[in-house]
Amino acid sequence: MANVTENGWEQLWLRYDKKVDAGNGKYFEAAPQLVGFDPENCVVRSALLELSRGVCGMLGMQMKAGDIAKAVAGADQASNGTAAAGADQAGNSATGASAAGEQGKTSGSQAGLVLKKVPEGTLTESGKALKAQGYALCENDGRLEITAADENGLLYGIFHLLRVISCEKSLSGSNVTCNPDNPLRMFNHWDNMDGSIERGYSGRSFFFENDDIVINERTKDYARLMASIGINGVVINNVNVKQAATWLITDRFFEKVVQLSKIFAEYGIKFFLSLNYAATIELGGIDSADPFDERVIAWWKAKMQECFAKIPNLGGFLVKADSEGRPGPFTYGRTQADGANMLADAVAPYGGIIIWRCFVYNCRQDWRDRKTDRARAGYDNFIGMDGDYRENVILQIKNGPMDFQIREPISPLLGGLKKTNQMLEVQVAQEYTGHQIDVCYLIPMFKEVLDFHTYCKPGADTVADVISGRTMGNKNTGIAAVINTGNDVNWTGNYLAAANLYGFGRLAFNTELSAEEILDEWIPMQFSTDAEVLRVVKGILLPSRATYEKYTSPLGIGWMVTPHDHYGCSVDGYEYDRWGTYHRADHLGMGVDRTDAGTGYAQQYNEPNASMYNSLETCPEELLLFFHHVPYAHVLKSGKTLIQHIYDSHFEGYKEAEAFAAAWDGLQGKVEERVFDNVKERFGRQLYNAREWRDQVNSYFYRKSGIEDEKGREIY
Amino acid sequence: MANVTENGWEQLWLRYDKKVDAGNGKYFEAAPQLVGFDPENCVVRSALLELSRGVCGMLGMQMKAGDIAKAVAGADQASNGTAAAGADQAGNSATGASAAGEQGKTSGSQAGLVLKKVPEGTLTESGKALKAQGYALCENDGRLEITAADENGLLYGIFHLLRVISCEKSLSGSNVTCNPDNPLRMFNHWDNMDGSIERGYSGRSFFFENDDIVINERTKDYARLMASIGINGVVINNVNVKQAATWLITDRFFEKVVQLSKIFAEYGIKFFLSLNYAATIELGGIDSADPFDERVIAWWKAKMQECFAKIPNLGGFLVKADSEGRPGPFTYGRTQADGANMLADAVAPYGGIIIWRCFVYNCRQDWRDRKTDRARAGYDNFIGMDGDYRENVILQIKNGPMDFQIREPISPLLGGLKKTNQMLEVQVAQEYTGHQIDVCYLIPMFKEVLDFHTYCKPGADTVADVISGRTMGNKNTGIAAVINTGNDVNWTGNYLAAANLYGFGRLAFNTELSAEEILDEWIPMQFSTDAEVLRVVKGILLPSRATYEKYTSPLGIGWMVTPHDHYGCSVDGYEYDRWGTYHRADHLGMGVDRTDAGTGYAQQYNEPNASMYNSLETCPEELLLFFHHVPYAHVLKSGKTLIQHIYDSHFEGYKEAEAFAAAWDGLQGKVEERVFDNVKERFGRQLYNAREWRDQVNSYFYRKSGIEDEKGREIY
Repeated sequence: MANVTENGWEQLWLRYDKKVDAGNGKYFEAAPQLVGFDPENCVVRSALLELSRGVCGMLGMQMKAGDIAKAVAGADQASNGTAAAGADQAGNSATGASAAGEQGKTSGSQAGLVLKKVPEGTLTESGKALKAQGYALCENDGRLEITAADENGLLYGIFHLLRVISCEKSLSGSNVTCNPDNPLRMFNHWDNMDGSIERGYSGRSFFFENDDIVINERTKDYARLMASIGINGVVINNVNVKQAATWLITDRFFEKVVQLSKIFAEYGIKFFLSLNYAATIELGGIDSADPFDERVIAWWKAKMQECFAKIPNLGGFLVKADSEGRPGPFTYGRTQADGANMLADAVAPYGGIIIWRCFVYNCRQDWRDRKTDRARAGYDNFIGMDGDYRENVILQIKNGPMDFQIREPISPLLGGLKKTNQMLEVQVAQEYTGHQIDVCYLIPMFKEVLDFHTYCKPGADTVADVISGRTMGNKNTGIAAVINTGNDVNWTGNYLAAANLYGFGRLAFNTELSAEEILDEWIPMQFSTDAEVLRVVKGILLPSRATYEKYTSPLGIGWMVTPHDHYGCSVDGYEYDRWGTYHRADHLGMGVDRTDAGTGYAQQYNEPNASMYNSLETCPEELLLFFHHVPYAHVLKSGKTLIQHIYDSHFEGYKEAEAFAAAWDGLQGKVEERVFDNVKERFGRQLYNAREWRDQVNSYFYRKSGIEDEKGREIY
Repeated sequence: MANVTENGWEQLWLRYDKKVDAGNGKYFEAAPQLVGFDPENCVVRSALLELSRGVCGMLGMQMKAGDIAKAVAGADQASNGTAAAGADQAGNSATGASAAGEQGKTSGSQAGLVLKKVPEGTLTESGKALKAQGYALCENDGRLEITAADENGLLYGIFHLLRVISCEKSLSGSNVTCNPDNPLRMFNHWDNMDGSIERGYSGRSFFFENDDIVINERTKDYARLMASIGINGVVINNVNVKQAATWLITDRFFEKVVQLSKIFAEYGIKFFLSLNYAATIELGGIDSADPFDERVIAWWKAKMQECFAKIPNLGGFLVKADSEGRPGPFTYGRTQADGANMLADAVAPYGGIIIWRCFVYNCRQDWRDRKTDRARAGYDNFIGMDGDYRENVILQIKNGPMDFQIREPISPLLGGLKKTNQMLEVQVAQEYTGHQIDVCYLIPMFKEVLDFHTYCKPGADTVADVISGRTMGNKNTGIAAVINTGNDVNWTGNYLAAANLYGFGRLAFNTELSAEEILDEWIPMQFSTDAEVLRVVKGILLPSRATYEKYTSPLGIGWMVTPHDHYGCSVDGYEYDRWGTYHRADHLGMGVDRTDAGTGYAQQYNEPNASMYNSLETCPEELLLFFHHVPYAHVLKSGKTLIQHIYDSHFEGYKEAEAFAAAWDGLQGKVEERVFDNVKERFGRQLYNAREWRDQVNSYFYRKSGIEDEKGREIY
């Protein structure tokens, strides 16, 4: 079980250690046939090398699998005009190289693995039409066929096949067609060029150090991990683009940027950069960043021509403007659309896209002011320009109107915008959800977001519909996550946090997957196929988000965290601050009135959501304090008062965390020692944290309300 | 008014700009006579050069004053065996050089300035006995005489004379004898070798940058400023000794340390370093810092021999052990006395002293625990070893038991210890008192501390008595301040904060000076002799501490500050934390019960203080919440309830701050523009801060208590 490589980092779910064969070996006795795919294509080569690596590791079939690599390498050499495939290969019956020469042939009846390119739209064995980047996997009588319309599809099909082997399931009788639900499936890195990571809890950046770009074997392993879960886009630098990062689009860094982007190209991943909106000033020597200024327009046109010419795999740019101190079009009296469109026009000739974040709000509020509502800001700043954006602009919208709290309503922009490309942004990095110390499996939360009915269009109104393009028939849409990786040996700080990394990618590809199905794949791949491990780890992860919610801030009010750091409890930490994040608790009650009698935020939703949230009776209770100021004595549907609910849920949450830790202890010897130790150590810290949250929240509200716990438990 | 030098920093109260003569010029028409003082002594030379500089600048008497410098320079050259005094000097009647040859002569009747060395204990004109470092200044019939028993006394006498000139007062008829009240009068720098300053609010360190020592003209100006107010010891590095600073006592830094210490020697200032108690481990390669370990003892003996041999002006060391994560004797099961005595024995052969901080407490408390009381810790940790310390150990005790809050009781160790050398530590750096943004003249607070009756000995029981040596007849005693300087042009961030720097030194020398007398000296010296400037600046500074107290935490409870940073309000910021700093507010009342029914802290005082604090009736109200948990409805002596007092004092405090700012505006044109602008800008920030404090504290207690303000003012 050598899953820490010589280089010192884990392979996570691509560990490829020895597995029970489950009858799968037979497909790899002969080398696979390539039909229609060019073995010289870099993505095809990556797919075949991955297949070789996986089959070799998991099934011990070194020879035949090795043939692929050699064949591909041979083809590669041949294409480079150097030596042809070596003589020791010549005797082999079906190398990739020879298969490449057989594209035209029908080879339907042959046993083994066939990798076949077909036109987009082709109906598969299961009767579905193949879409871009989709694949079909079909087994009949010893013949295993992966069909895809493009190289990404092939790559994902190979990873699907390896996943089945890794889970020790049989490939026999396979008949699935998997089309990606979201055209864009991206990770956003908040890595800074000094090597730090904003909201990073897994060590330092593996892309940057000392204001320079780092490229090594880990970069490639990262790309493999991303491709294995269907990710097809990556933004490598922090959306807050400052200092050296501003220079990523200049000759100072082009050479290394190209090298880096090429590694992603080999895994079908488009390369994106975060842009500094003020680059015309900081790089261009122009005294303006006004999107209507001809000098600004000309500078960006020239700069984009240069970028796309030099970086062949460039997909486009991510922009955070007019937010939290970042420059933007508002400075010049222009709209967000004006800014985004100006950049979009500059990248359009090259097929580039501009992803424009909607996280624009006043971060210098006065806590005394009860009219201004940060929750309203995204909608208020963007809804008026719906329909004004270029076709190659995508608005990237955080799942909630605030900032990645453990519980928020869905942003009313999602499905509120009806004529604009939308992309959902979630946070896999556990900024407010436990810093990868506390276990918090986020997929159930992401599922809630995707399944939410926005009522924007009958029959196609969920967030999943909107961001997949199903609602509007648009193609520049998708989903992005702020990633939780760093240069820790295990990539994600807590081994269990890799479930969020893996799960996000899988969910982005297939929004129908359940949170449990994802764990059924990931646990056997990353830890063990032992049934007890599966049972225990699922038993911890599936309820973990609910548990975290119980011991932290109640009923959707959010915050109550240590300022800036965002780990640990501080009930009043943001109460008297400028960030627009308040609980408004006094001796009688708490919560923010966002109804039509309050800030009016609830009215930003399409009906019937607006009315549902507006009413204390119909508002879902898990969001009660987000929408309403409620007395402590208010009786919930459970029959408990609000204050008793706070006490009870906090005692429960801590107990559940204790139970998780105890359950994990039972896995000693069943998972590798370093995995066991890492997670055990984190549980120790989680229990400390959960106890602090429990006692601080309970004590705070007890001291403020003066209402005793009905059960007489210790509150301080 | 050129008080920013060419080098770019202010001269503060040593600006020496042109003054009204007030009949003082006549004393400097002839060069002064040195009687008994060696003009080659470096301190004497500094005194004469300072005299020359001051008389030249303030009275425009360049020629004669210049003679002194030339004479001294000539003497210096002669003593170096190079050229004798130049021929152009030979014709002068009474140069320093010639005076030096006249030590034996009686020159009583001669007009002009006479600087005379006499034996310690000599009775002066005013009938007092001259003490070490004291001086007498006496004028009769045109003859002005400074008498001192040593060079420091001469230096301080010269600065006294310059102070009189600077204030445009007449020297005629002077007859004062000034002996320092405290043997040691020190500044402690919390400067780190990377150039940062712990709790520094005036820029970066001027001693260190990039892990190296900086020596330049500013170093000398700093020494001059210190000497001018009677400071005779300085600790240049942070008490938290880490990384490079550990190496200050090694060859890596000795050369520069010696250069630096020499500059202080020229101004009669003993040079001290903060020590890393774990140096035996970090430098010595010994696996222990146990004070009973023979290897440890031997290492320190050798190291101290080396240090004192190489650094002639070394006075000793300051040590923070077993505190806030620093190593110490507790690690080895030894007492604080064991640790201090071991080091004291190592420095004793060289006349060195060990200053040992008493800031030892558990900084990992549980906020749920109401028995453990940080306030008790200093006394509990040190009182049992009273009498066990070597004669060359001094315990340095913070003024209060907590940590430099705007209002604390006096530490019960002061006067609690009856057989141990004691040194008072105060903080001129405004860590908890406004960061040199808010104006807060601290001398009234320091006066309260010095005047406090500890009841340790009839007739000599004030803190001033204890630390001066009057109580116990000991000589290793004194006062130290954490300094507020940095490399800002004006040294102290806010120009008005220089009042604390100046005032501390003057008060350390003469504890009888009033807060107002100090301002009567400082304002004319640093700003202007204009009566309106004096009136307005005094009107701001004298009540400023009371004002700051009003708008921050009430009645001695302290804290309620932004964690770590310690500027700005956060009522619950430290309430649920590990630092032992709580207000224990609930919906009924607030305050910490430190009576015999509570933590028992009040019992640490000598009677009758213990009983006074223990009783709600006799406890001084400004400390009410420090000692008692009190209902909001409790009626104070003013007739107001506690809650109404909180509301009223916060509204008052803000109004007073507004009045300060308005008064300052009236000085436009009366003080230099950069002074005016600097202080005006700070007042802008102070008003913002005061308003936040007012509204946050009032809103917090209103929301918690539910009790309305009687006056119906706006609370949020």
